[in-house]
Amino acid sequence: MKISARNQLKGKIKKITKGAVNSEVTLELADGIEIISIITNSSVNNLGLKEEKEAYAIIKASNVMIAVDYPVMPSVNAC
Amino acid sequence: MKISARNQLKGKIKKITKGAVNSEVTLELADGIEIISIITNSSVNNLGLKEEKEAYAIIKASNVMIAVDYPVMPSVNAC
Amino acid sequence: MKISARNQLKGKIKKITKGAVNSEVTLELADGIEIISIITNSSVNNLGLKEEKEAYAIIKASNVMIAVDYPVMPSVNAC
Amino acid sequence: MKISARNQLKGKIKKITKGAVNSEVTLELADGIEIISIITNSSVNNLGLKEEKEAYAIIKASNVMIAVDYPVMPSVNAC
Amino acid sequence: MKISARNQLKGKIKKITKGAVNSEVTLELADGIEIISIITNSSVNNLGLKEEKEAYAIIKASNVMIAVDYPVMPSVNAC
Amino acid sequence: MKISARNQLKGKIKKITKGAVNSEVTLELADGIEIISIITNSSVNNLGLKEEKEAYAIIKASNVMIAVDYPVMPSVNAC
Repeated sequence: MKISARNQLKGKIKKITKGAVNSEVTLELADGIEIISIITNSSVNNLGLKEEKEAYAIIKASNVMIAVDYPVMPSVNAC
Repeated sequence: MKISARNQLKGKIKKITKGAVNSEVTLELADGIEIISIITNSSVNNLGLKEEKEAYAIIKASNVMIAVDYPVMPSVNAC
Repeated sequence: MKISARNQLKGKIKKITKGAVNSEVTLELADGIEIISIITNSSVNNLGLKEEKEAYAIIKASNVMIAVDYPVMPSVNAC
Repeated sequence: MKISARNQLKGKIKKITKGAVNSEVTLELADGIEIISIITNSSVNNLGLKEEKEAYAIIKASNVMIAVDYPVMPSVNAC
Repeated sequence: MKISARNQLKGKIKKITKGAVNSEVTLELADGIEIISIITNSSVNNLGLKEEKEAYAIIKASNVMIAVDYPVMPSVNAC
Repeated sequence: MKISARNQLKGKIKKITKGAVNSEVTLELADGIEIISIITNSSVNNLGLKEEKEAYAIIKASNVMIAVDYPVMPSVNAC
């Protein structure tokens, strides 16, 4: 299957934390770059997800927001 | 401002493609790892986004899906 | 590729309306049951989407809301 | 109430599975066509949802992705 | 129709800005509290939206993030 | 941090209901205007959220739908 979502990032599953209904899946894209996903436990089972396994993070471009750090204010304390 | 979204990935803006209302922003998280975001042109202006500038991709964990490659089918060609 | 989204509904593409950046894709799941998707034109091209072609609508369960008709008010017209 | 979401698909509730906070609601749109929704238990109660009851799946068009099967590879086994 | 979304905020339409495909609708919930929605032009027409008309902003609780201001840094200017 | 989401509504936290994984946070924007958010418990802790504290509801404009009341039907009961 090939899907329309613009972001399909390959990584390795680092951690799966199961809750009652949902699991939190941590995917490592590269050294120090991780992405966290919340999917149902059924999906974890259906996909056979396990730590160390390769997987993709799939994200629609319209679900990605952009942020910037505030410009550092010049602190003028001329005392 | 500090926000509840679990994924806040730092990168450098590689490309901004402006449309009539929305812009497509490509953020490079690391060599070869890019993430695409679609936000309004107003937001591009408000945040002062420009190529080469540092920025963050902000994504709710519940908007990240997981996919796996199909297991390779054993190809039985006993000829 | 196998994806975590719970809803993967098979259908036939009935109409594609291209805009400047996005396309509106109408998928017919069965007689009289249609689903509308908005994806980027790039995705339409990448997937080779065309009218009459088979395709799937992929929807995260958490993006599906439920609604009901209001209960019919008892109309008391005691004339 | 009339809502802006483009997809408003009528069906019959087939199953409701309650969790601690959320419920999984399965709606049958037609024979063999089902759609799964995750909503809060409060919403299940507020709407008076019950199996066999008519309901609508409400989905924004921008939350519907499209996927296609990979083109079948020509398997050339000329033995 | 009654819908499962937890947030159904009543307001008055203050401005509609039409683009090629989508419109930006500004809803005033109270003095100085506005919410912006992007929906398709078709929806604007189907709902008969007009400035000054009453309408509701409908938002799933899982689409609402929370942010806080950074704690104010103690500014030590011991001059 | 400054974020691209168009809606950044200031309020005061009125209630936090913790579940196993997620919390339901009620933010009061003004007298009688409340907005409900579902975020993870980790986020509640990371942000140090508490009742009475000031916070912002952050919502992408594309996640806001618009609804209207049905026009009241003239009930003609000429008996």
